[in-house]
Amino acid sequence: MNYTLTQIPDRTAKPRQSGLTMVMDKGLSLREVEDFLSTSAGYSDIIKLGWATSFVTPKLQEKLDIYREAGLPVYFGGTLFEAFVARNQFDDYRKLLDRYKMEYAEVSDGSIEMPQDEKCEYIRTLATQVTVLSEVGSKDEAKIIPPYKWIQLMRVELQAGAWKVIGEAREGGTVGLFRSSGEVRQGLVEEILTQIPSESILWEAPQKEQQVWFVKLLGANVNLGNIAPHEVIPLETIRLGLRGDTFSHFLNQL
Amino acid sequence: MNYTLTQIPDRTAKPRQSGLTMVMDKGLSLREVEDFLSTSAGYSDIIKLGWATSFVTPKLQEKLDIYREAGLPVYFGGTLFEAFVARNQFDDYRKLLDRYKMEYAEVSDGSIEMPQDEKCEYIRTLATQVTVLSEVGSKDEAKIIPPYKWIQLMRVELQAGAWKVIGEAREGGTVGLFRSSGEVRQGLVEEILTQIPSESILWEAPQKEQQVWFVKLLGANVNLGNIAPHEVIPLETIRLGLRGDTFSHFLNQL
Amino acid sequence: MNYTLTQIPDRTAKPRQSGLTMVMDKGLSLREVEDFLSTSAGYSDIIKLGWATSFVTPKLQEKLDIYREAGLPVYFGGTLFEAFVARNQFDDYRKLLDRYKMEYAEVSDGSIEMPQDEKCEYIRTLATQVTVLSEVGSKDEAKIIPPYKWIQLMRVELQAGAWKVIGEAREGGTVGLFRSSGEVRQGLVEEILTQIPSESILWEAPQKEQQVWFVKLLGANVNLGNIAPHEVIPLETIRLGLRGDTFSHFLNQL
Repeated sequence: MNYTLTQIPDRTAKPRQSGLTMVMDKGLSLREVEDFLSTSAGYSDIIKLGWATSFVTPKLQEKLDIYREAGLPVYFGGTLFEAFVARNQFDDYRKLLDRYKMEYAEVSDGSIEMPQDEKCEYIRTLATQVTVLSEVGSKDEAKIIPPYKWIQLMRVELQAGAWKVIGEAREGGTVGLFRSSGEVRQGLVEEILTQIPSESILWEAPQKEQQVWFVKLLGANVNLGNIAPHEVIPLETIRLGLRGDTFSHFLNQL
Repeated sequence: MNYTLTQIPDRTAKPRQSGLTMVMDKGLSLREVEDFLSTSAGYSDIIKLGWATSFVTPKLQEKLDIYREAGLPVYFGGTLFEAFVARNQFDDYRKLLDRYKMEYAEVSDGSIEMPQDEKCEYIRTLATQVTVLSEVGSKDEAKIIPPYKWIQLMRVELQAGAWKVIGEAREGGTVGLFRSSGEVRQGLVEEILTQIPSESILWEAPQKEQQVWFVKLLGANVNLGNIAPHEVIPLETIRLGLRGDTFSHFLNQL
Repeated sequence: MNYTLTQIPDRTAKPRQSGLTMVMDKGLSLREVEDFLSTSAGYSDIIKLGWATSFVTPKLQEKLDIYREAGLPVYFGGTLFEAFVARNQFDDYRKLLDRYKMEYAEVSDGSIEMPQDEKCEYIRTLATQVTVLSEVGSKDEAKIIPPYKWIQLMRVELQAGAWKVIGEAREGGTVGLFRSSGEVRQGLVEEILTQIPSESILWEAPQKEQQVWFVKLLGANVNLGNIAPHEVIPLETIRLGLRGDTFSHFLNQL
């Protein structure tokens, strides 16, 4: 930090198990990745190449190398996993992970229908190869999953070997955990937290108000994802009580 | 492409007559242009320097040179044409196009009133000098043009020599083809398509939901414009059925 | 300017006392700062490092040096001042300003309660050290300050030694001068202007429609703030009547 302020919440240190910031790269150039790293590497824990953008991204290997050199693991968005599965190309997907020496992978069913047993089987298989993040929630805003079902899905997917379960929100933050207005489904989140430990969940929360809501509920070291590269510094100030939205929240506590 | 997936829609190859992506540059620095080109040149077909931003853009000649070297044609936004016409400086505009060796120009009447005969006269005159894009639709959200009028305007402007007609949306996507909420005027678009071939139209569609709607209606190779530089990679995945929004649409078809 | 157009409103020249554009940097990398300067230095007058982002920004000194070399003064967002005051560290704040050789500082009470006498005392003290900008308006959208109170606050803070008073809007433009929808509180602004000279006020106006509204009301040389770096070129075209929104406004006047 550049100067000293009292009463700043403690942040976990890297490599973090909680307090994670997952950043979404949806097509940065190599130089933009360098720019991002120069300001935000210390506040970022893992990078997702959004959905299947890696299919069309030029210089993919070079991009992966730059992130790797900075000590930041990268994974392909769950939609890419689903694109391979929907085409009966799961073996190709496993080879792809090897070819790019990926250490993390996401298993999701946001765009396809998949029985839970099958999803858990994918988790178990991939967990022999990489660290697995498993995502719960649909990308279809009309498809509402009731809270008990979220809990059941999260529980079995963690048991199947997922390192973290991700709560779906998309890039926009308007499905899954959130209403189409972006408003948090508060009852859903609170019910989930009665059964699943917060440290096991990575909440996608691309909108500022969503990040603020989670930080107020779960503290500076909540796991948050789908953060846009230019929002990592702003998010860090929200975590530390140094933006208007959480300014009083932490001062009153500490 | 970085790896092989089956059932990916065919994309037209450059130089494209359909499947065009028109990108709006509203003030990128030279280095940002290079960054953009490094990821998105292959997925972009033509660049618009938004409205009259070229008036205040430093190093304009250098910017044009960089795009030219990358094989990407550039044109000045229609508002610049209108700014010259409104000041009785049309001859100066023609000289400006020559001075910067422009190969494309836009004729529009989004901010001024212009009888159709006069607009067609401008199209005919400029068509002797450059390739002309002609825009239909007002920038004023209160000004609704009925569908039969859109069709009639598009038809005569193509006959007057326009290479493509552009459907107005502005940078935000909240006028012309769209309601102020961003929602597509579906009836308008469908009625236009009964009379004007889709390949002749470049639809401004800056918002993701708008792009998805057009890709679902007209396929991977619909002409789309006013795409922000950082949205070209995401758009390409929408065209290819590799983002949640069009994932099932293409899988079910192919 | 790259070419000649008649009937362009006169802009004030730097160093400006009116017609100021204040830009918000919320975490740009050093190279992004250079990019920004290469296009927009001539159209920017002062840079705010948003709220307390300077606490977590790497290479802060280098960033300040780059702006300084470009002749652009920088100040820390008011929330940082409040963070020091709320911790009884005001003396540390003064030392911080010295350590970084800051020439400007903001005094605000957007996140904390502060009696006006105390606020004016801070203004008076800091004015012996730097040029002071003083901000009026709460960051809490539920907290409505009536117009007579805005006027009274602005008046005494200018008397206490503030160079300009800032009308609060936050990064989003949804509090203070604006409704939560982003709509301008027109009556408030008009009432303020009956008592406080426009040149003494810097209006935070991050949204395009807000900028347009102020330019139409107060002309090309209104002081506007919280402008995102990539919106400085677009704003300059709005000031000059070269974007659809103000195109007719200035043509009809000049």
